[in-house]
Amino acid sequence: MTSQMVLRDEGQNLEAQNQQPGAAHLLDEWSVTQTQWDTDTNRAWEGLLTQGNGYFHVRGSFEEGLRDEPQNLEYERKMQSVTVEVATHQTSRQGVYIPAITGYHPEVRQTVINLPWFADITISADGEEFDMAHSDVRGFSRRLDWRSGVLTRRVRWATEAGSVIDLVWERFASQDNHHLFVQRLRADVISGNPQICWQSGLTADVVTNGHRHFSGITTDASNETLACEVVTDHGDVVAVASRVVCEGPEGIERTSSVTDTGAQIECSTPLAQGQSAVLNKYTALTTSRDNELDPALTEDPAARAYGVAREASVEKWGQLLEASTKQAVSAWDAADRADRAALIDVPHLRWATYHLLRCTPAFEGITQVCPKGFAGEAYYGRYFWDTEIFLSPFYLETNPAAARGLLEYRYNTLDGARKNAREYNCRGAKYPWQSGTDGTEQCSLWEYSDTELHISADIAFALAQYVDRTGDSEFMWRCGVEILVETSRYWVDRVDWGEDGQAHLINIMGPDEYSPMTRDNAYTNWMVRFNLNQAVRWATAMKRDAPEAWAELISRLDFEEEELQAFSHVASNLPVPYDEERKLVLQSSDFEDYAVIDIDGMWKDRTKPFGFYAPQEKLYRSRCLKQADVVSLLTLFPEEFDDEQVESAYEYYKPYTVHDSSLSPAAHVQVAHRLGKHDDVKEFVAKMIAVDFDLSRGGAADGMHIANCACIWQLADLGVSQ
Amino acid sequence: MTSQMVLRDEGQNLEAQNQQPGAAHLLDEWSVTQTQWDTDTNRAWEGLLTQGNGYFHVRGSFEEGLRDEPQNLEYERKMQSVTVEVATHQTSRQGVYIPAITGYHPEVRQTVINLPWFADITISADGEEFDMAHSDVRGFSRRLDWRSGVLTRRVRWATEAGSVIDLVWERFASQDNHHLFVQRLRADVISGNPQICWQSGLTADVVTNGHRHFSGITTDASNETLACEVVTDHGDVVAVASRVVCEGPEGIERTSSVTDTGAQIECSTPLAQGQSAVLNKYTALTTSRDNELDPALTEDPAARAYGVAREASVEKWGQLLEASTKQAVSAWDAADRADRAALIDVPHLRWATYHLLRCTPAFEGITQVCPKGFAGEAYYGRYFWDTEIFLSPFYLETNPAAARGLLEYRYNTLDGARKNAREYNCRGAKYPWQSGTDGTEQCSLWEYSDTELHISADIAFALAQYVDRTGDSEFMWRCGVEILVETSRYWVDRVDWGEDGQAHLINIMGPDEYSPMTRDNAYTNWMVRFNLNQAVRWATAMKRDAPEAWAELISRLDFEEEELQAFSHVASNLPVPYDEERKLVLQSSDFEDYAVIDIDGMWKDRTKPFGFYAPQEKLYRSRCLKQADVVSLLTLFPEEFDDEQVESAYEYYKPYTVHDSSLSPAAHVQVAHRLGKHDDVKEFVAKMIAVDFDLSRGGAADGMHIANCACIWQLADLGVSQ
Repeated sequence: MTSQMVLRDEGQNLEAQNQQPGAAHLLDEWSVTQTQWDTDTNRAWEGLLTQGNGYFHVRGSFEEGLRDEPQNLEYERKMQSVTVEVATHQTSRQGVYIPAITGYHPEVRQTVINLPWFADITISADGEEFDMAHSDVRGFSRRLDWRSGVLTRRVRWATEAGSVIDLVWERFASQDNHHLFVQRLRADVISGNPQICWQSGLTADVVTNGHRHFSGITTDASNETLACEVVTDHGDVVAVASRVVCEGPEGIERTSSVTDTGAQIECSTPLAQGQSAVLNKYTALTTSRDNELDPALTEDPAARAYGVAREASVEKWGQLLEASTKQAVSAWDAADRADRAALIDVPHLRWATYHLLRCTPAFEGITQVCPKGFAGEAYYGRYFWDTEIFLSPFYLETNPAAARGLLEYRYNTLDGARKNAREYNCRGAKYPWQSGTDGTEQCSLWEYSDTELHISADIAFALAQYVDRTGDSEFMWRCGVEILVETSRYWVDRVDWGEDGQAHLINIMGPDEYSPMTRDNAYTNWMVRFNLNQAVRWATAMKRDAPEAWAELISRLDFEEEELQAFSHVASNLPVPYDEERKLVLQSSDFEDYAVIDIDGMWKDRTKPFGFYAPQEKLYRSRCLKQADVVSLLTLFPEEFDDEQVESAYEYYKPYTVHDSSLSPAAHVQVAHRLGKHDDVKEFVAKMIAVDFDLSRGGAADGMHIANCACIWQLADLGVSQ
Repeated sequence: MTSQMVLRDEGQNLEAQNQQPGAAHLLDEWSVTQTQWDTDTNRAWEGLLTQGNGYFHVRGSFEEGLRDEPQNLEYERKMQSVTVEVATHQTSRQGVYIPAITGYHPEVRQTVINLPWFADITISADGEEFDMAHSDVRGFSRRLDWRSGVLTRRVRWATEAGSVIDLVWERFASQDNHHLFVQRLRADVISGNPQICWQSGLTADVVTNGHRHFSGITTDASNETLACEVVTDHGDVVAVASRVVCEGPEGIERTSSVTDTGAQIECSTPLAQGQSAVLNKYTALTTSRDNELDPALTEDPAARAYGVAREASVEKWGQLLEASTKQAVSAWDAADRADRAALIDVPHLRWATYHLLRCTPAFEGITQVCPKGFAGEAYYGRYFWDTEIFLSPFYLETNPAAARGLLEYRYNTLDGARKNAREYNCRGAKYPWQSGTDGTEQCSLWEYSDTELHISADIAFALAQYVDRTGDSEFMWRCGVEILVETSRYWVDRVDWGEDGQAHLINIMGPDEYSPMTRDNAYTNWMVRFNLNQAVRWATAMKRDAPEAWAELISRLDFEEEELQAFSHVASNLPVPYDEERKLVLQSSDFEDYAVIDIDGMWKDRTKPFGFYAPQEKLYRSRCLKQADVVSLLTLFPEEFDDEQVESAYEYYKPYTVHDSSLSPAAHVQVAHRLGKHDDVKEFVAKMIAVDFDLSRGGAADGMHIANCACIWQLADLGVSQ
């Protein structure tokens, strides 16, 4: 039996670029319009049209769902088999996530939870229920406005009974009140005299990766209000309340009902030709963790949710949208790079920026940004190096407070990182490859958690970047030095001193996850050296500039100042494998012990990842790079390598690199740009766009590749500096 | 989180040898007598006193069980956590196994199944039920006679009501009729006039590693007969029938009852002081797979079981024991080495031999011998290299038909091995690290299944040994050459050709399971070379001596004769890492890239395995050997290495070797003997004895280390040749 490789970016092979990424949709400067609907791309659209505001996120699923796609199927998900979920939900996967709300899965450990589906609005006419897959849909478009965040779907529906009705659904997540989601559905009768019936509900009959996470569910409904409160298996409370307000020419009949897992309001009214009716739904989400944002909060979540929904129903769509858009525009003012987009087209740049803005954590310092941008359940809403290395530059330039928040999260989970280090009998702190709420390791596969160590040094890198850029030494004294010192202590214990008198990091996986257990990975060793040197640098500065805080810190950490010498000693003896003759940084000192294989011959269909054609066992013994490894290093320290070295590495690794990771083209494009390889730049930009935006690939089906979005955003500056 | 190492021999650290292995028991030339009972050692005694006949095996649990040790607890067992089961059954674990009967566990894959417990006999006096842990036991002994296989327990029981009763339980697994298990329990009243009540049952309310494996259970009981038939989750049928016959001075009252999962007979009788009564139980086990042993069988399993039990009840104890002993003595005549025991004491030699004889497969060619000798559920009753490398010499010398049977099993599972090769995109056949009924890989941990490849070559080795020793070329033509050719084809595809023009095996775990993913493991490369060369040798011989069979074979395998040249080409270009200067065979070409660690300093308590003190991550990057690796190679090819090379390897690896595997001392003792290191020989012999027979270590708790038993047996010859 061959072990299945866990592809961090399954389905993301980006080699063949022949198809038109824009098929079946139109792009303009500020919006995307989907012009055609089919079951094949629906799941990817749900990811691409995800809405949110940092507090919660909602996938772009249809309000009424799809009749053939039940959302409550239980199944066993294992860490090894990322394909299971794909098979379970082929066409549609609804998802509502609050990054701060997580649960425990028996097999895969901590995971963000799919919360009650609250966007639900179904519509019937003359007893026929509307369904995108089964109804006679005579016209369809769906438009996401990136600035306002409003998602609008238009449908012309011919009922079996002979009526023709135009339907317009609109919805947005408020950027002004992050508990609020606002929806409306307008029906215009073009012909016929149908009896219209809306059903709008909340349902907690949902699963996350096939698993149920609610230990308690309470539901309630009146003629205008729906309420659903769940208690998660972590003991958190999430309350959802909706106000449902209908407007029509005739009297509207209303009933409400509840089940063990849901609440529902039904409204019905006759409509004559030329008449219209509108259903408005104002939904509020609150949690028992909200007082971590606002310690003054006293009301319980359910009461707060009820209050927010009721107040919104008074203010109504126009006022609510205006307030939200005002906030959105302010964020866009800082983040928009359309005027500097040389290498990237404006629509894709903005689509990517939209998702970056959506992901800015509301729970600052408590949550980060997961690799799928909370637009799906893949990777369980955990935090990887993606944040520090790929997202951090975006936030640093557009929203330094958010950039600090990402690092605050790492500081707040330092105790978990300490626990990880203890598990390996090491002092200090080892940040986990996959982080959840407390910083302990959530990845249950040892080949990653034991060997992919660069994450701790990546955090040190982002920290140094942040302070160097902002001058926020207060943060460095309060949090940063402690992170630097504790991670450095771990490195001192983790290295092995060889008979050659040098320190070595043995059994290491670098960013290239197809090569585990290598010796002296260049990326890792370089970053660790940086981490150690920054610890010495900032500890020395702190001692000088903030002596009292320093004294408190070293007393609390039981830190001996001689340890700084140990940090320097390791840093100056940790080799970065390099071949003078070829001016070549080697991925690891044993890289050339691995086999050269016939990648071209094995890779039968380049629309699939190479990993589909080679068992993990084969990848693990071959010179085959899932993603840039040395090339990534070159992009982080461009001034430390001369052009010859950069060229040498770029050309050497190119034939070995299969870009099965979505993070790979982003690194390559920077180096190609530096080397003036314009054709390569074009190719890699196209690859980056295709990661999520090529609907035929379906890359966004399980969420957005948010780190790649951040790299797309960085392309703007790259173009200008050319 | 640190991954937990799967210790193949958990709890088996053998360093400290200060304790007297013989505490609380007496050994004589033909038996062991346990003189003291306690909860701490009971589980190990159950392993050590396991009875069987190759068709079935019964752990040495008390007939009546222990009140505080329920045997039906369900729990989740994962491949990673071998400790779970230990915690679940601290004191007692009943077990009945038929090697041919396996099931499927959702987490750990195929496993031998714990079958209905049939040895059950409880006894009450004056309403008080006897229990070893709770009753007033005034005298106790338990004796296993290795030649006859009879297990006898004697107890003097003082009841709460004031009676004193002597109880004698006896039982044996028939060596004459391998479906039959014979028991009796005699009660002699020393004082008092108790009302005696026996209950004897069959119960299918049992689990295997916490999991239930029966899809159907049928039970029946009459006043003399109990029946229980189960259908396993593999669809096999196992039938158990018992005849229960009581003899006493007064009339005996009898009732019977059934439940969904069990059947029971209750007998009661008053006994006066000086009176005795005896319960006899004749149990037969049959399965739906029996016609694979005897194709003429037509009756269904239940009818056959009933017939065997009924017939036995007519023949009775004396006659049955005589027939069984006659068979046993004949086997002993071939296997006993007491007269050549120089390095090993006779009792331990015979205790080990007893288990080896017990394990000789009844299902010849269909089952093998699992590492725990079917005396427990650890390793799930699967087959490892233990058979070919460690057990094969015993069978080869004492029972060549059995030795051939082990190889027939490999031939019969060749299709599974072919499937394994396909999983890796290789031609030929890759035998699994853990084999079940069909030869597909059962080990769910990739670090073993992907990298511990030597098993295929080990089989080739055992095959060549068998044919060279027996001259059984008929077997070689019928089965052997096909195994050699198919495994060789796999090797040709598995090697990577380096820029140095040599063939390499990359990412290999040798016998030392603390070093995965190494390059050119000496043991593996040597064995693979041998495998390839034997393929060429025997294919050439077959073409010459059995041309028709050869023609048929190459046509069936679509074999081109040029492939033989490829075999030779790989064989002659596969390096065995060697340092000329030190005359040192290196475990792998990268062995000295691994770290030297302070084993002595880390190993706080040497009664525990070293693995308890080092996370897998640490072991995997250190020069720390779970077991002999190069040393094992030296023992298999003693003539290929001169004394200097042997000495060099022995001394070099000694400080790195922690012997966490039970297979390690056995290899070392041979080399130490060759080098005349008499103190070391003594130390390793003591370690080998302690593996299972030191009760304070409890090594036999989950079964016998049967490969180590075979190595103990080999010590006899070693002593003589000195």
